[in-house]
Amino acid sequence: MPRFRMTIEYDGTPYVGWQMQENGQSVQAALQQAILSLTGETVSIRGAGRTDSGVHAMGQVIHADLSRDWKPYKLRNALNAHLAMAEERVSVLDVQAVDNQFDARFSALRRHYLYRIINRPSPLAIEAKRAWWVARPLDHEAMHAAAQTLVGHHDFTTFRSSHCQAASPVRTLDRLDVTRNGDLIEIRASAQSFLHNQIRSFAGTLKLAGDGKMTPADVRAALEARDRAACGPVAPPDGLYFMKVDYPGDA
Amino acid sequence: MPRFRMTIEYDGTPYVGWQMQENGQSVQAALQQAILSLTGETVSIRGAGRTDSGVHAMGQVIHADLSRDWKPYKLRNALNAHLAMAEERVSVLDVQAVDNQFDARFSALRRHYLYRIINRPSPLAIEAKRAWWVARPLDHEAMHAAAQTLVGHHDFTTFRSSHCQAASPVRTLDRLDVTRNGDLIEIRASAQSFLHNQIRSFAGTLKLAGDGKMTPADVRAALEARDRAACGPVAPPDGLYFMKVDYPGDA
Repeated sequence: MPRFRMTIEYDGTPYVGWQMQENGQSVQAALQQAILSLTGETVSIRGAGRTDSGVHAMGQVIHADLSRDWKPYKLRNALNAHLAMAEERVSVLDVQAVDNQFDARFSALRRHYLYRIINRPSPLAIEAKRAWWVARPLDHEAMHAAAQTLVGHHDFTTFRSSHCQAASPVRTLDRLDVTRNGDLIEIRASAQSFLHNQIRSFAGTLKLAGDGKMTPADVRAALEARDRAACGPVAPPDGLYFMKVDYPGDA
Repeated sequence: MPRFRMTIEYDGTPYVGWQMQENGQSVQAALQQAILSLTGETVSIRGAGRTDSGVHAMGQVIHADLSRDWKPYKLRNALNAHLAMAEERVSVLDVQAVDNQFDARFSALRRHYLYRIINRPSPLAIEAKRAWWVARPLDHEAMHAAAQTLVGHHDFTTFRSSHCQAASPVRTLDRLDVTRNGDLIEIRASAQSFLHNQIRSFAGTLKLAGDGKMTPADVRAALEARDRAACGPVAPPDGLYFMKVDYPGDA
């Protein structure tokens, strides 16, 4: 059967998360329902990453096997029409025909996430549910310095949800950069893979570095403690965006 | 009574518009209710500009007279707390004490608006209700060239709602710039004042210039026709943002 790779955008606010669950609508189910209503086929799609409820995506990648040899742009447009009819907050940005070696999850070389903080005294109206509002002034340079103590190959037990199902807490963090543009603070994280809640745990801890409650050395010590209790409060899902996945052969 | 100037942000989606109306909640009423619940005072606030239902603001300016001599940051924080309790999508960004000569509407020297178009084949998930989605590729340079034929002192009857209550259709348009950054096309408009639906009428007409249905000369001819029927379809409110107001003495 022809295999298709799709790049997906979604507003995570109304969903229980990427993965199908019994307690509400998931992004995965929304896409599978659109495929069913378009093709009559019940498929199980695989995503490059699981995102929690309220977490957004601008570049989630999935693969799906369909019986028909669709022209990619026609499949994209038809799925978007079905998603719109169902009033889903999900958009198919791109479709490519790929060979059956491609697996959205297991072929991924690197995943890129963005965490957005809006740092100003007033609450968010336009950007409500699209960023984390932090009223207390944050020093983004202190946040960046603290972030650099986390980059590299480490046991990230401190920054991992107690519900994380990964066999090992060891990961290689390639990038954790903090930049500021006006009120907007952006944290950009890249790695081959992440643990459950890892980036929101980073963001919550870096916020403490930004308002002077932790030094970079404290953040390093929290990492080395390998103790969930050493992590700052987990940042809300509103600010997190799954941006991009790199695969072999991509330009 | 002490007079306060406030800068206001709002998500226009759930409101009937800036101005109080009988058919639903307005931004003006939301603010007046927050002032009443905070101070016990029934005030009538004046805004620098009226925005229609669905139109957003990042820099609406209002003035209000209150009996108490509030510290500006305390008034800002207290109003935001009351707006949050009422679940309004309105945020007070800034408060200043001003003298009684200041009038948010009549002292305004220039108003600045932004119209956002996202130009890509796929519908908007993250930016739904925050931009106008246009799937057909638009030539932003053609849009900018057409826009320049509208800048200056003109009779803008063509680009004015039939419900516009202004005494004269003559306005001086200081700026109408079209730029592109990836999928995002931004139209920036500045003038001392605008007619009802003027910027959405510009955006709808410039979209026709962008997809080749009108040349810059056609847009100029539409202006000179002074005929509402010569205007392109009015663009949706989702893309329009009231950004900033200039007053005498501002830095």
